[in-house]
Amino acid sequence: MTYCVGVKLDEGLIFASDSRTHAGVDNYAKFCKMTVFDRDEDRVLVLLSSGDLAATQAVIGLLRRRCVGREPNIWSVDSMFDVANLVADAMRDIERRDGPFLEGSGLKFNASFILGGQIAGEEMRLFRIYAEGNFIEAGRETTFLQTGEAKYGKPILDLAVTPSATMEDVTKCVLISFDSTMLSNLSVGMPIDLLCYRKEQLAVTMRRRFDPGDSYFQTLTRQWLAGTRRVFSELPALDWRD
Amino acid sequence: MTYCVGVKLDEGLIFASDSRTHAGVDNYAKFCKMTVFDRDEDRVLVLLSSGDLAATQAVIGLLRRRCVGREPNIWSVDSMFDVANLVADAMRDIERRDGPFLEGSGLKFNASFILGGQIAGEEMRLFRIYAEGNFIEAGRETTFLQTGEAKYGKPILDLAVTPSATMEDVTKCVLISFDSTMLSNLSVGMPIDLLCYRKEQLAVTMRRRFDPGDSYFQTLTRQWLAGTRRVFSELPALDWRD
Repeated sequence: MTYCVGVKLDEGLIFASDSRTHAGVDNYAKFCKMTVFDRDEDRVLVLLSSGDLAATQAVIGLLRRRCVGREPNIWSVDSMFDVANLVADAMRDIERRDGPFLEGSGLKFNASFILGGQIAGEEMRLFRIYAEGNFIEAGRETTFLQTGEAKYGKPILDLAVTPSATMEDVTKCVLISFDSTMLSNLSVGMPIDLLCYRKEQLAVTMRRRFDPGDSYFQTLTRQWLAGTRRVFSELPALDWRD
Repeated sequence: MTYCVGVKLDEGLIFASDSRTHAGVDNYAKFCKMTVFDRDEDRVLVLLSSGDLAATQAVIGLLRRRCVGREPNIWSVDSMFDVANLVADAMRDIERRDGPFLEGSGLKFNASFILGGQIAGEEMRLFRIYAEGNFIEAGRETTFLQTGEAKYGKPILDLAVTPSATMEDVTKCVLISFDSTMLSNLSVGMPIDLLCYRKEQLAVTMRRRFDPGDSYFQTLTRQWLAGTRRVFSELPALDWRD
């Protein structure tokens, strides 16, 4: 499993991904699931991968390969919508190539992505691309998109993520959402990759990896636990005589 | 779907269940999923039902029917362990009766229960009984058991539920856990049935139903939202220069 989150705020975009891969409970390993394509003053594209590692690596590999001698590619298009379609094309090409062999072993092509970023001249955009290559785009009513083991971490995001929330607060919230998920699902694990992108910046300036034992992450989760316990104790008690 | 929670604290037991039933997104209705068998100074038994309504109602109906002219029954046994086995026996008998007919339509017998309470002379106990009739019992390391749509509401319970937590605080926490779940899954819905049992009381004195618009529930969820947003804003911001 995997846990990835993309958030679109008025101020900017936030991306986070775990880095655990595994086959059943066995053979677990660390792979970065965040891929960034950036060229200063032109574009920042972030892809978060979920699904089988062979499938997602093949898609990313093909996207990179097609940057050389083939147009349109992710550096040449002038809309995030076109980038989403290029990712979908790569996914479908890999599925055409690998799918029949996977089926022979009773498996299915399994890759999906969160794609977000900004290209000069266009607004920031955020998409979720399904395994079939079709996709949805985040709007003001749906400010965040998740993939993988999404349920444990969703209520925490619901608490704080609104379009007008600050990147600073939502960054903390996203990290807490990862902590909640890791506490309940062994298939989601550190390190966590985090990238914050401020609107119109067209450059990557805020990227951070949180390894196990990261002191900021530990402080954050400890203070969240203490803070929420205080909130519980301050909530009005139920009056059974009502 | 369904959401049920049973909690075992040093102070006592807490039970809560939603009351939505449905067939797909259609034909949704309200049915109480909490069944209580209580006799003052002797026993309090609480069953929370998950699964197909026909299956869970049949099991409860058979348990009641067997209280007349058949021993052992839920009023005659002197251990919660025996009660769990009587529930399992009823489940297996209903499955033997209905299972083949369900299979004819490609369906499977589907019922599971959270069972908790106390019988005079024994400690409080809390069980989760699976659809196959086997069961597990909560201990000090696992203070709560959930059935149904359990993932959304689990991180909130993880924050506050420890064996030594107060029933007052954990009751609020359980209600917030239901709110988080209902916000994300349409198949879990109000009213919520809540029962708190204080150790050695051997009587039901705290039982409450929360209907849509319940003023205490609304106050609780509003203050939780405000409180957690305050906690987020007070958490230390990430220093990107680290």
